[in-house]
Amino acid sequence: MQQLLDRLAADAPRCFGEGKVASYIPALAEVEPDRFGIAVCHADGSVQCAGDATTRFSIQSISKAHALALAMRELSPEEIWRRVGREPSGQAFNSIVQLEVENGVPRNPFINAGALMVTEMLVSQLFMPQQTIREHVRRLSATPSVDFDETVARSEMDHKAHNAALAYLMQAYGNIRNDVEVVLDAYFHSCSLAMSCVELARSFAFLANHGVSPFDGQAVLSPVQTRQMNALLLTCGLYDAAGDFAWRVGLPGKSGVGGGIIAILPRRMCICVWSPRLDSYGNSIAGRHALEGLVEGLNVTPLG
Amino acid sequence: MQQLLDRLAADAPRCFGEGKVASYIPALAEVEPDRFGIAVCHADGSVQCAGDATTRFSIQSISKAHALALAMRELSPEEIWRRVGREPSGQAFNSIVQLEVENGVPRNPFINAGALMVTEMLVSQLFMPQQTIREHVRRLSATPSVDFDETVARSEMDHKAHNAALAYLMQAYGNIRNDVEVVLDAYFHSCSLAMSCVELARSFAFLANHGVSPFDGQAVLSPVQTRQMNALLLTCGLYDAAGDFAWRVGLPGKSGVGGGIIAILPRRMCICVWSPRLDSYGNSIAGRHALEGLVEGLNVTPLG
Amino acid sequence: MQQLLDRLAADAPRCFGEGKVASYIPALAEVEPDRFGIAVCHADGSVQCAGDATTRFSIQSISKAHALALAMRELSPEEIWRRVGREPSGQAFNSIVQLEVENGVPRNPFINAGALMVTEMLVSQLFMPQQTIREHVRRLSATPSVDFDETVARSEMDHKAHNAALAYLMQAYGNIRNDVEVVLDAYFHSCSLAMSCVELARSFAFLANHGVSPFDGQAVLSPVQTRQMNALLLTCGLYDAAGDFAWRVGLPGKSGVGGGIIAILPRRMCICVWSPRLDSYGNSIAGRHALEGLVEGLNVTPLG
Amino acid sequence: MQQLLDRLAADAPRCFGEGKVASYIPALAEVEPDRFGIAVCHADGSVQCAGDATTRFSIQSISKAHALALAMRELSPEEIWRRVGREPSGQAFNSIVQLEVENGVPRNPFINAGALMVTEMLVSQLFMPQQTIREHVRRLSATPSVDFDETVARSEMDHKAHNAALAYLMQAYGNIRNDVEVVLDAYFHSCSLAMSCVELARSFAFLANHGVSPFDGQAVLSPVQTRQMNALLLTCGLYDAAGDFAWRVGLPGKSGVGGGIIAILPRRMCICVWSPRLDSYGNSIAGRHALEGLVEGLNVTPLG
Repeated sequence: MQQLLDRLAADAPRCFGEGKVASYIPALAEVEPDRFGIAVCHADGSVQCAGDATTRFSIQSISKAHALALAMRELSPEEIWRRVGREPSGQAFNSIVQLEVENGVPRNPFINAGALMVTEMLVSQLFMPQQTIREHVRRLSATPSVDFDETVARSEMDHKAHNAALAYLMQAYGNIRNDVEVVLDAYFHSCSLAMSCVELARSFAFLANHGVSPFDGQAVLSPVQTRQMNALLLTCGLYDAAGDFAWRVGLPGKSGVGGGIIAILPRRMCICVWSPRLDSYGNSIAGRHALEGLVEGLNVTPLG
Repeated sequence: MQQLLDRLAADAPRCFGEGKVASYIPALAEVEPDRFGIAVCHADGSVQCAGDATTRFSIQSISKAHALALAMRELSPEEIWRRVGREPSGQAFNSIVQLEVENGVPRNPFINAGALMVTEMLVSQLFMPQQTIREHVRRLSATPSVDFDETVARSEMDHKAHNAALAYLMQAYGNIRNDVEVVLDAYFHSCSLAMSCVELARSFAFLANHGVSPFDGQAVLSPVQTRQMNALLLTCGLYDAAGDFAWRVGLPGKSGVGGGIIAILPRRMCICVWSPRLDSYGNSIAGRHALEGLVEGLNVTPLG
Repeated sequence: MQQLLDRLAADAPRCFGEGKVASYIPALAEVEPDRFGIAVCHADGSVQCAGDATTRFSIQSISKAHALALAMRELSPEEIWRRVGREPSGQAFNSIVQLEVENGVPRNPFINAGALMVTEMLVSQLFMPQQTIREHVRRLSATPSVDFDETVARSEMDHKAHNAALAYLMQAYGNIRNDVEVVLDAYFHSCSLAMSCVELARSFAFLANHGVSPFDGQAVLSPVQTRQMNALLLTCGLYDAAGDFAWRVGLPGKSGVGGGIIAILPRRMCICVWSPRLDSYGNSIAGRHALEGLVEGLNVTPLG
Repeated sequence: MQQLLDRLAADAPRCFGEGKVASYIPALAEVEPDRFGIAVCHADGSVQCAGDATTRFSIQSISKAHALALAMRELSPEEIWRRVGREPSGQAFNSIVQLEVENGVPRNPFINAGALMVTEMLVSQLFMPQQTIREHVRRLSATPSVDFDETVARSEMDHKAHNAALAYLMQAYGNIRNDVEVVLDAYFHSCSLAMSCVELARSFAFLANHGVSPFDGQAVLSPVQTRQMNALLLTCGLYDAAGDFAWRVGLPGKSGVGGGIIAILPRRMCICVWSPRLDSYGNSIAGRHALEGLVEGLNVTPLG
């Protein structure tokens, strides 16, 4: 495995010729583009890595998976799935069309509208939502130093227009009841968490371990919930490139515009790759390429 | 396993209170609604079954998976994936909207438009397309008596309007070059194949066996193609209920409005269930319920 | 003419059995539903009326026509028509779909998104936009006492979610540059103007007089601009019922959810009707009915 | 008037630098691009013209207005307007999206789907639909030699895919009951009529004369129907450029991809212009420009 990771890290620069760093907020645009890290956290909690695996980056949409796991712990499934769907959207991550056609109910929790809805539920349910989200991720990654990047969070709020449009439209349909600014603030803070490949791989290791955190032995989710979450990551985790990712990589995964992607090999490991150059769907090019190489190098994958 | 299958068959009548038999063509509307069959074909080709597992029914859209497997054998991946996508559609199985928005390129091969496109490719590529499709399915199921139901095929042609609209729109975009009537005829014949649960489970056993048919030991697809096909079945196999099916069952699958569903447990088995009452998405209610029960009864599933 | 108006007022109660008062904001929901007023302002400024023609009501979307007239005075046509279209939308008045499909450029100035864009332009152009809009309407109607209803304006701001979604989406496309809250405030104030049928008919009399106000003899718009505005009112003035209104009434017009409708008989008169019960498109039922009766009673209409 | 027409014809070549002749069927692509004709038929039937006003060209979509007038004579309004709407579509002339969203009911009779529906009604109602359509146009234009161009009609049938998709989709919704091929054949024949500017202007003179043909003094439509038809032409006659045409020209009109446009000045005249170079909406560039010049040269227009 270590050899495989070293080889993937060595091969990554081949992908540095294409793609662009996310630039919709200034704080992200400044990231050095030609970086690559990869970390594997096995089901027993042990970690192997290569490249810039301990450099922290903005996890962005990967936080949508943390948030959903927290919501699945804190709220009943009836409450969650009445307010957000479980189907691939067939649209770009930030499309507003589907919301209007389907009465303000987002297609799934991994598009922006759906993650805003999950945040809305957490804001309603929790006493101190932002702090609880941070504690949740600290516990999952067993890394107390994980924290928000306030510069990123503020920059997102300064460029909130598109997410504000999504949130206000859901409010117009009566589906968001909290103040939109409060929901946006909690959402942007979750996205702003700065974590390394190692920390992210650790934070989702429970999805490769029947829902049990290998670090404290506690169940984050039940085995059935774990399978459900992996299914949702497989069908909806990479926006409107989810089908292509399933075709090429075949693992449940979640990407973020910070250049990170996490992927789950059920019952075996969680992998996290990072490389900031993105394709037109907002997914890391070198990251996806490395995951393809990893799956090729493994003998067994979930789909054959 | 046999006990589990018997129990699932015994429990199936609980679902007979809801749902309706497909009625868009008269030939399908006459099917007795309260039937249930289940068959498992293991990776070694051995079969276990319960209920009406040897009654033949109209496989309908399950044929889309046979057709894609044939196309993946006969055409280059470049040719196929230039003309049809690999993403979940986010729309009903017969939606025409997406076609117009995306210049006549269907989202994936398992919605009607996509299956018509695969048929178009087979019609262009093969000398006698209909006969070749039939021979392909006979070989996959190791059952030479598998045949078209001409009454069903004719009934489909008599009610061709919606599929004709899809095909003509793709022709208007220059993506269908053969005569639309010829493509429809081949497509409707594929859908009209009459097969039992046992025969269908056998015909897709190669997807649970690294692409190798357990009946003649020949590779139908390569291991990589097998994994790709399973990924596509998982993300797109059940129309706009694909996400929900992945959530509940977590297996690659394909349904048909005849009431059949096939599902793949990679490296272990192919399951086929049949029960004609359908939910609003066109998927068998008792069939999906039985698959949920089966997954619950198994110790290991691909996603956790 | 007076006889005709009296008869229309006498017939109006026949329409009181159907339709509902707008209820999306509490301030509008309290209006007495069974009211009817009609006023005609001739091209020479003389007025005839019947029913509750001097009761003030909330002009709501009729203000979109005042705002556009002001923009056409204050900004170059290039600036205006680069930022908003001139085509019927084919969608409901508050649809957000079209905005996404067409990069945040509203179809026309009489749907909500378009009126928000016109307000955005006025906010950028004018030193004190709200006050200038009010002065503009006071001058057009030659009625210095016309004023905002602050209760309505505040109630609209409290229920801003849908319009906020439209405005933020346009901001996300870079088309709204002012603070969204400022634009919404100016827009809601314009909508909150309280005016009677007589005052509204007077305020649009210039559209029946080659652009010249009959009250001060000054040109509000040029003759060409007047014809253009009348064309836009005819094709886009009644949301997605514009075609039906043109078919039945055949006059340029603009409706508001307060129950008012203004209509122009070019070179002859401006008519204003008011009755609060609305059809499903948001247009006054008794009002449209009275306009049909008026056109029937006149010898000459613009379209034959 | 003659001076004005001569000037417009003399100015037309200025527009010959842009636009393209319709090329979707070979028969149309062969037309000489740099032609221009204009004819005015006054309400009394007298004609004035300039340029190539007696050259016959393919009337194409202008036939949609002939067909609707015939349907309004032959069928009850209830029957017609239950099966086709009266609203601008907000979409391109051949869009299929709207049909799916609105259950196979076309938005108006002047988009392709709507004209196919009108043809469907005529095919159901009339003993010999094609011949009756031809006789109707011959009578309206008082020109017995008007006839189909069989080469054009056959070429349209050879390239029927898009219209076939529209018609089959409407059939799938149960809204087209005749054989789709029969409806298409009648529709393509109507479009293939070859007429000159003079003949077309004569054929719609009744719309400028309260519905009465100036040639035989018989009512084609009632005065109310005439006003309704003019309203529909104004709001829907130029596809998704209808709003812009109303803004610039302000007259009810109908264009065809053969380069013809007819326009109505109610109670005064029908104008027909022809020039084959089209803009991106499928409307004649020199034709629209000449109509703008004509309206500018007249003292009185319907909208001010």
